[in-house]
Amino acid sequence: MLETQTLATYIVTSRLESVPQDVRHEARRAILNFTGCALGGSVDTAVDRAMQALGPFSGKPTACILGRGERMDPLHASLMNGISSHVYDFDDTTPKNYIHPTSPVASALFAYSSANRVSGRDFMEAFIVGFEAESRIGNAVYPAHYDVGWHITGTAGVFGAAAAIGKLLNLDGHEMIWAIGLAATQAAGLREMFGSMAKAFHPGRAAQNGYAAALLAQAGFTAGERGLEGPRGFAAVQAAHYDLSKITARLGEDFDLRANTYKPFPCGIVNHPTIDGCIQIHNEHHPAPETISAVRLRVAPLVLDLCNQRNITKGLQGKFSVYHAAAIGLVRGKAGIQEYTDEAVNDPQIRRVRELASTVGDPSITEDQARIEVELSTGARLSRFVEQSLGNIHRPMTDKQLEDKFRDQAVAALPAAQVEKAIKLCWQIDNLEDVAELIQAAVPREG
Amino acid sequence: MLETQTLATYIVTSRLESVPQDVRHEARRAILNFTGCALGGSVDTAVDRAMQALGPFSGKPTACILGRGERMDPLHASLMNGISSHVYDFDDTTPKNYIHPTSPVASALFAYSSANRVSGRDFMEAFIVGFEAESRIGNAVYPAHYDVGWHITGTAGVFGAAAAIGKLLNLDGHEMIWAIGLAATQAAGLREMFGSMAKAFHPGRAAQNGYAAALLAQAGFTAGERGLEGPRGFAAVQAAHYDLSKITARLGEDFDLRANTYKPFPCGIVNHPTIDGCIQIHNEHHPAPETISAVRLRVAPLVLDLCNQRNITKGLQGKFSVYHAAAIGLVRGKAGIQEYTDEAVNDPQIRRVRELASTVGDPSITEDQARIEVELSTGARLSRFVEQSLGNIHRPMTDKQLEDKFRDQAVAALPAAQVEKAIKLCWQIDNLEDVAELIQAAVPREG
Repeated sequence: MLETQTLATYIVTSRLESVPQDVRHEARRAILNFTGCALGGSVDTAVDRAMQALGPFSGKPTACILGRGERMDPLHASLMNGISSHVYDFDDTTPKNYIHPTSPVASALFAYSSANRVSGRDFMEAFIVGFEAESRIGNAVYPAHYDVGWHITGTAGVFGAAAAIGKLLNLDGHEMIWAIGLAATQAAGLREMFGSMAKAFHPGRAAQNGYAAALLAQAGFTAGERGLEGPRGFAAVQAAHYDLSKITARLGEDFDLRANTYKPFPCGIVNHPTIDGCIQIHNEHHPAPETISAVRLRVAPLVLDLCNQRNITKGLQGKFSVYHAAAIGLVRGKAGIQEYTDEAVNDPQIRRVRELASTVGDPSITEDQARIEVELSTGARLSRFVEQSLGNIHRPMTDKQLEDKFRDQAVAALPAAQVEKAIKLCWQIDNLEDVAELIQAAVPREG
Repeated sequence: MLETQTLATYIVTSRLESVPQDVRHEARRAILNFTGCALGGSVDTAVDRAMQALGPFSGKPTACILGRGERMDPLHASLMNGISSHVYDFDDTTPKNYIHPTSPVASALFAYSSANRVSGRDFMEAFIVGFEAESRIGNAVYPAHYDVGWHITGTAGVFGAAAAIGKLLNLDGHEMIWAIGLAATQAAGLREMFGSMAKAFHPGRAAQNGYAAALLAQAGFTAGERGLEGPRGFAAVQAAHYDLSKITARLGEDFDLRANTYKPFPCGIVNHPTIDGCIQIHNEHHPAPETISAVRLRVAPLVLDLCNQRNITKGLQGKFSVYHAAAIGLVRGKAGIQEYTDEAVNDPQIRRVRELASTVGDPSITEDQARIEVELSTGARLSRFVEQSLGNIHRPMTDKQLEDKFRDQAVAALPAAQVEKAIKLCWQIDNLEDVAELIQAAVPREG
């Protein structure tokens, strides 16, 4: 009935101390994973170009951008953190709603916390309410909202950033209602942008716009007070079917953070079982790439809906090609950032295998599964059925695997000693007196 | 088929010299009307609060804000111009798609032109392509897009600003395709915000975000290249039914500027026939307010859909109340900005008449019409049928009436001599060597 008000009250009154320990640990994992992704992506051309375009418009440079030496105002820094953390599609995902949840929330929080003194406790509290608000709003409109073509990371993300920054700004309940309304009326991002830099722009803009929504609400800039549930509010306008009770049911008792997952591979999660199975075949049989004569994939129908690109020339396009997923697993036995460069996509061996791969969408195959059959010119047949993909909720990455993933990405931006310090501080984040300590470890030293 | 590309080519190649003279004159009228609205709204609390919230984040203050002494960076100035020009709901409307078309385009152009040297010719050329791009995209998705709850001024407006600024930045065809994509993926704004400050935020944010889209595209920040027509592009995602041929048909030959209208009253246009008729009754019969015992309105059904608010206490809410519309026409004989203040809404005489008014939605009544019947305690019955409302396409405001409207609004922000100078320069805009001359007349003198 009054979901906006109920959610606002939760955001305003929630206390970290009432959040269970396992949820808090999952929040640390999410922040570690996010920070690594932001560091890895901070060197990408997309961030360079966004800085080039918008740098001249930045306000007082009080905020750090993770992984970079430049500073900007906190709103622009939120945008840049969002782009860098999502540009390799390597950040976290909540499979129940396909949101990449941490980027919009943490991008804004890190920007805010580099310009204002914020304790680790307050950062963590704000992160958790932001994450939960975002994910619950996503649950309410998923799947109709996603299916029609909204990039839910952008549309739900703006609510998460507004909630988190609003929490740090100590908005009262009424102001928080306005912040949610101002987030609702900025919710945007189209899946048509997948395969271009604009995809990574979505969580960045969500972080920046949610932050601005909280600032405006604090200044008394009014908004409609039923931003979520009103007849022309977010749910009614942006989803053909929705269930608003998912926003408020067991609020503060159930936590979607427990349903969060971390990607071992920097591409759309629906490709992960295929990659996983192909890497297993590679590791077990070491087939010479030139002997591969056929690759037959049986995958969930959604895979073909999202990732059916075959004639590709750009690294970014590779993320949306299940054929490329199979080829890099079989040819290279890994799927890291180096497998999604323009060079890798145009590698003749990878291209050959990609082009001979074929797919069948099979409704009996879940989105965590893949059935792979490889034929060699020797006549041998290698096959594999992946029942649960690495990194999914039933086979989560361990803390140690997350640290290794962090290292692989962070070395692009930081010296090794800083990388280790940043990892250590992420695990301790809620005990830091000032989150600036972590942020300083996550930007290159000057001079 | 490739509407994004066709539109981008038109924007890039269009020349002012091939635009008919009557269209250019309509552009001058639109700019005059916009400038007056921005000046009138520049003193509103909504602008003050937005400046308070976002001012600390402004970049180098190179751009003027119409009607105000402060300067901001051009992106923030675009936002502020957009808020001020729409906050009283007094700006122009294209009845065929309900867009308030000039605000998103001109808000960005004035901000850009105060920070960069732009000739009147180039300003006018950019304004016309921006207006046409915006209105044609609106036509393609109207009415389904509007009916479901999108505030089309925000959603279509971002395209207009991107096209106009992209034109001034001399984007090439490919960059313009990205600018359109980056606009598409930021298209937002919910009708749920009507009656709050967030409504005026929509054209402002559209101006700011369209401007940013053009800057990003110029820097090579890529976007999906079928932002309008792709299967998950703007039209497919944001409208249940659409006709993309309306974007490209007779492009550069037909001009939607010819379908633009200017509002004599600062409220939703669907209330205008009611106000018009009630003012006519007032002027003819001068009924004493306390003698009014019944007011019966027959209006188009859409009026009740949009403006059925009766128990109101705020000036902003008055804009969405056909009952208030009738009351101010009958009691005060006018409907200027002073009739939409909190004071007017709470005026006991106006409240009494508002509360006794009743409505019937009648499908035989068009949106330009209203049938009004007033009963007095003397037993007299006064009635009026308005067939064409003042300001509509068949009964347009004259140039002189637009000047008077400008004066009424601009005095809130400027001394009379500047007001007259600004009017004169608006009529000459396409001949100015530098639009800064007009902008200087439209900001308060320092010292």
